[in-house]
Amino acid sequence: MTQDANSNAAPANEGAGMEGKHPLDAIFHPRAVALVGVPSGESQGASLGFFTSLLEQGFHERLNHGLYPVNPKADEIRGFKAYHSLLETPDPVDHVISLIPARAVPMLVEQAIQKKVRSIHFFTAGFSETGDEEMANLERTMVEKLTAAGIRVLGPNCMGLYVPYEGLAFMNQFPKEPGNVMFVSQSGANAGDVVRGLGNRGVRFSKVISFGNGSDLRAHHFFDYAITDDETDLVTSYIEGVQDGPKFLTALKALARVKPVILLKGGLTGAGARAAHSHTGSLAGSTQIFDAVCRQVGAWRAETMDDLHDVSIAVTTGLKHVQGRGVCLVGGGGGTAVLASDALATAGLDVPPTPEATRKELSEFIPVAGTSINNPIDTNMGDAETTDRTLRIMARAENIDVIVTNASFGRNADEADLDELKRRATDQAERLAKLQQETGVPIVVLTRGTPHAVLEHFQYEAYRCGLAAYPTIQRAARAISAILQWRERREGLPTIF
Amino acid sequence: MTQDANSNAAPANEGAGMEGKHPLDAIFHPRAVALVGVPSGESQGASLGFFTSLLEQGFHERLNHGLYPVNPKADEIRGFKAYHSLLETPDPVDHVISLIPARAVPMLVEQAIQKKVRSIHFFTAGFSETGDEEMANLERTMVEKLTAAGIRVLGPNCMGLYVPYEGLAFMNQFPKEPGNVMFVSQSGANAGDVVRGLGNRGVRFSKVISFGNGSDLRAHHFFDYAITDDETDLVTSYIEGVQDGPKFLTALKALARVKPVILLKGGLTGAGARAAHSHTGSLAGSTQIFDAVCRQVGAWRAETMDDLHDVSIAVTTGLKHVQGRGVCLVGGGGGTAVLASDALATAGLDVPPTPEATRKELSEFIPVAGTSINNPIDTNMGDAETTDRTLRIMARAENIDVIVTNASFGRNADEADLDELKRRATDQAERLAKLQQETGVPIVVLTRGTPHAVLEHFQYEAYRCGLAAYPTIQRAARAISAILQWRERREGLPTIF
Repeated sequence: MTQDANSNAAPANEGAGMEGKHPLDAIFHPRAVALVGVPSGESQGASLGFFTSLLEQGFHERLNHGLYPVNPKADEIRGFKAYHSLLETPDPVDHVISLIPARAVPMLVEQAIQKKVRSIHFFTAGFSETGDEEMANLERTMVEKLTAAGIRVLGPNCMGLYVPYEGLAFMNQFPKEPGNVMFVSQSGANAGDVVRGLGNRGVRFSKVISFGNGSDLRAHHFFDYAITDDETDLVTSYIEGVQDGPKFLTALKALARVKPVILLKGGLTGAGARAAHSHTGSLAGSTQIFDAVCRQVGAWRAETMDDLHDVSIAVTTGLKHVQGRGVCLVGGGGGTAVLASDALATAGLDVPPTPEATRKELSEFIPVAGTSINNPIDTNMGDAETTDRTLRIMARAENIDVIVTNASFGRNADEADLDELKRRATDQAERLAKLQQETGVPIVVLTRGTPHAVLEHFQYEAYRCGLAAYPTIQRAARAISAILQWRERREGLPTIF
Repeated sequence: MTQDANSNAAPANEGAGMEGKHPLDAIFHPRAVALVGVPSGESQGASLGFFTSLLEQGFHERLNHGLYPVNPKADEIRGFKAYHSLLETPDPVDHVISLIPARAVPMLVEQAIQKKVRSIHFFTAGFSETGDEEMANLERTMVEKLTAAGIRVLGPNCMGLYVPYEGLAFMNQFPKEPGNVMFVSQSGANAGDVVRGLGNRGVRFSKVISFGNGSDLRAHHFFDYAITDDETDLVTSYIEGVQDGPKFLTALKALARVKPVILLKGGLTGAGARAAHSHTGSLAGSTQIFDAVCRQVGAWRAETMDDLHDVSIAVTTGLKHVQGRGVCLVGGGGGTAVLASDALATAGLDVPPTPEATRKELSEFIPVAGTSINNPIDTNMGDAETTDRTLRIMARAENIDVIVTNASFGRNADEADLDELKRRATDQAERLAKLQQETGVPIVVLTRGTPHAVLEHFQYEAYRCGLAAYPTIQRAARAISAILQWRERREGLPTIF
């Protein structure tokens, strides 16, 4: 772990209380936002994206919110009055998004101080991450000036804030509903991947922060904030280089004690570390050290982005209650069941034979030919009633801890129209969730084979009902196994799921 | 490896030549098919599926084809004349699909012999796979009678044949175009998974065979057939229990010598083996033995169904030509590139730094801020021209063996309508394929983040143009690595890709 050059820059209001709120809370609740450097006219690209994302989220429509595009050459942008300078915007402006080139930043710094803003987010790149000494100095100087004036800095070289509760967003088509998951990310692209990827699976977010070079605010500040943030139940994070090693460890430890934390570390291989250095100027650590830290504090280290997604789903649905390795596998046909059993066993789980008493119960209504009641269970019947009855009986078996079943859209799903498919998807999610609740045995749904048109809807509905859904049995198996391992590793720590 | 009870039943025309064609060729080219036990009226379910699939494929519309539903109680089914018995159908009937219950099978056997059919496929289950001695005897007896009369048997307990060239299919919505991939499967569900899953990714099939219990025809017969089948360039297979160990090995070895073979073995874990035994009555072998066999003969052992899909894509696209471990990673944004580099390194590949001369060429048109020319390359420009220019230059670098890039649908893809997206997808596939051809360096496309609506179209277009596309960098990395490993293991064997 490394400390970067700025680790001694003491932020002005670090640790200061404000009406009982954490000092960082204010930056997530700006009353007005100025976008400095919004392109005018027909220009496209990432810079304009910030403006259109705020419009899409309706930031400007919220009570007492102001949205001020700043462009020295424009009087109006997309129907909004444009200001020629930050100093011309109405008061107050709490948050500034800087979209201007690096060389123009020093003037903006002066203006932001004069304007008494609370926070400034530099989308602007081209600073310390380039490896250029002069630009690294410029970054250091601007951050010193801003923090000395009590202004917190996000970035540079980052995407900033997504706070759906306030209508703040940095990419288009992010969900508008707020949720209970926080994502603290050194990378904007990965923040987008998490919001869109997990968003498509039904997850909603409290705060997502892309902090890039982390010249002022960095992972440990947000971990510290998350400890007392009532809106956050799960903290996920993507880290390239650990800045302020000791502070990072202290904040992570305190957070992981009380809330589930899932960390994904980039740059753990030689090739990845080289890429991380180009990206945020980070020096990456080793897998062993990072893994040991996560184990010690009781956080979960995701191995890939998919793992981060999948374990996030597990720990925010009924699956988090799974208590043992016994899986009941239902449906999917013979060969599929064989491969699924292999996948579960490979992940350290078990598909135990159905106990005799349970077999007896099942054989009362499941015929012999073309079926199996041995676990994997294959009733070879598509109807909901048989499936429900089977699941209810299996859930009572003493060797079953979790049920894994397939999303199925009923007879002639090929021919059903989208509305009908959506209705069936909702019905199925609610039906399985009811069973999960009644029996106390977590139910996991596999979406392999779900028609593309209804996949997102089904995932949303399943998650809304508290069901964990995965695209493949391998990913489901790893997620189930993760919950069991994670709980085991937290022995001695408070229960968090 | 085990031999089942029927391994001594010598098929009547085994090894006999027929106009230079392999003796099994005839079963893939039936002139007329009788479906015995098609449900009439409003009944639904799998049995009816066989009939509707043949109708969907237009089997009956081909020259000199006949399609005869048989049902003792119906005169017409879905507009087709129905026959009360197989014996009432017109002559000739080459292929019979049995959808009747096991107890009614003995009579059908007599009729099939009298009718002089060539082959019979028993969807009918409830035989040896149940573990019931009486039913196992029934299976043995019927197969002995049929094969003694020169009739080949598929199954029982299977889905039979998908031969798009002839309009034969066993599930709905299978592609109608024929292709060059064969799948030999002990499981119908897995056959469906392969046809639909790989089908969605653009792969097309010569013959797909689900042979279930394999009471007569089994894996080694189809491997032997595939050796000389001009329509098949790649053989994929799902096996639960190896029947006729020595014959299996001989046929596999001969086939793998001349064509790429990808094998997926089910039941390699305890749980999987239990499931396989319930499914097809198979006794599974161990991972070690199976792995050793594959290495020895130069076949590829897929670890999961996804692996089978992914390596099939690799070996039938330009990716099969990859010669080394040097990957050029283009696009995707900083944090994504870091994780992608980690994934590639984890799979044993390399993301080498861009050579100095190449850096110089790139820096002539790629600006410094917010970009990287170090590999991973991030031009931060969405336009095709910059990307093409970059790829062409990177392909010439001496340490680059393969290029991995992201599917991208251009500016404002969010707002584009489906037709426009499809057009862009086709353009992109053709553009990248042209570069692949020009440079001789394989190009792999990642589809993560591709809008669902256009995913299948893009995959189809990419595959049609000879590009390998994968949903995640992990899967792409494994596939690239598989080609390199596979080629290495085939040292001393003929070049097949």
